[in-house]
Amino acid sequence: MRELDRTEALGLLATVSLGRIVFTQDALPAVRPVNHLLDGEDIVVRVLGGGALASLAAPTDAPGVVVAYEADQIDPETHLGWSVVVTGYARPVADPGDVDRYTAALRPWVGQPVTGTVRIRPDLVTGFQVEAVPSPPSSAPWG
Amino acid sequence: MRELDRTEALGLLATVSLGRIVFTQDALPAVRPVNHLLDGEDIVVRVLGGGALASLAAPTDAPGVVVAYEADQIDPETHLGWSVVVTGYARPVADPGDVDRYTAALRPWVGQPVTGTVRIRPDLVTGFQVEAVPSPPSSAPWG
Repeated sequence: MRELDRTEALGLLATVSLGRIVFTQDALPAVRPVNHLLDGEDIVVRVLGGGALASLAAPTDAPGVVVAYEADQIDPETHLGWSVVVTGYARPVADPGDVDRYTAALRPWVGQPVTGTVRIRPDLVTGFQVEAVPSPPSSAPWG
Repeated sequence: MRELDRTEALGLLATVSLGRIVFTQDALPAVRPVNHLLDGEDIVVRVLGGGALASLAAPTDAPGVVVAYEADQIDPETHLGWSVVVTGYARPVADPGDVDRYTAALRPWVGQPVTGTVRIRPDLVTGFQVEAVPSPPSSAPWG
C-alpha cells in the first residue's frame, strides 16, 4: 500500500467521473454520490434536486463550507486499486460562463433538475494505491 | 430514479463488499473506503492501521459515534445503478466470539494491521436506484 502525492492523487481523480461528496447536515455526517470533473486542481460537481446538497449550491458571501470528496477504483476481489480523499472549501460557481462550460461538460443524471454547480478547492489531498498481491484469504485451504 | 425502502437498500448493501465510512475528525468531514459485511441489519467493518478511523474502534462506554456509510454500484457511462446511505451509531465490537467470526469473514487488506472491528447499527437508511434509460449527453450529434 503506497501513499500518493497530491499530483498523483488529483491525476487519478481526473480519470473517473463518479465520486462521493461528504458534508455535514444538521450536525450529522452526510454523503452523496455525484459526478465530477477537474478544472485545474478544482473539483466541480453539479447539485441535483432540492435535497441536502442543495445548501452547498446556494449563493453565499461566506468562504464556503468544508467538505470532503472521495473517489476510488478498488477491485472487490483483489483489493488492488486506489482511493483519493480531498478536503477543502466548497463554494457555488457564480460566473455564468463557468456555469455554462461545466453544464456542457458534466452529464446530467436522470430526471433530476439541476440546482447549481459547486467548486471544491482542494486543501488537503490524500490517497493510496494498492499495487501488491494480497495475501490469501483466511478461508483458503492452506489457511 | 426510484427511492429504495429500508429492506431493499440493506439488501443491495449486502451484495457488495466495499463501501465508504463517513465520520467527523477534528470537526471536519472525513471518509475512508472499507470492506463490510452485514450481520442482520448491522454493518460490520474492520479498521486498519492507526489512522483517523482507529478512534472508532477504541473501547468506549459511550453509545458510540454517529457515522454515515455509503455504498453504490453506478455505471459511469449510463448512470444506471444504485446508491445506499446508512446513518447510525458506530461502536467497537467487544465480544471475542463476534470478533473472531467477523475476522474470518472479512478479508484483510494488504499490509495493514487490524486495529479493531466496528459495528454500525442503521438508524436512517436511504437509497435510490436509477433504472430508466438516460437522456442523450449534451455532446451528442443531435444535441
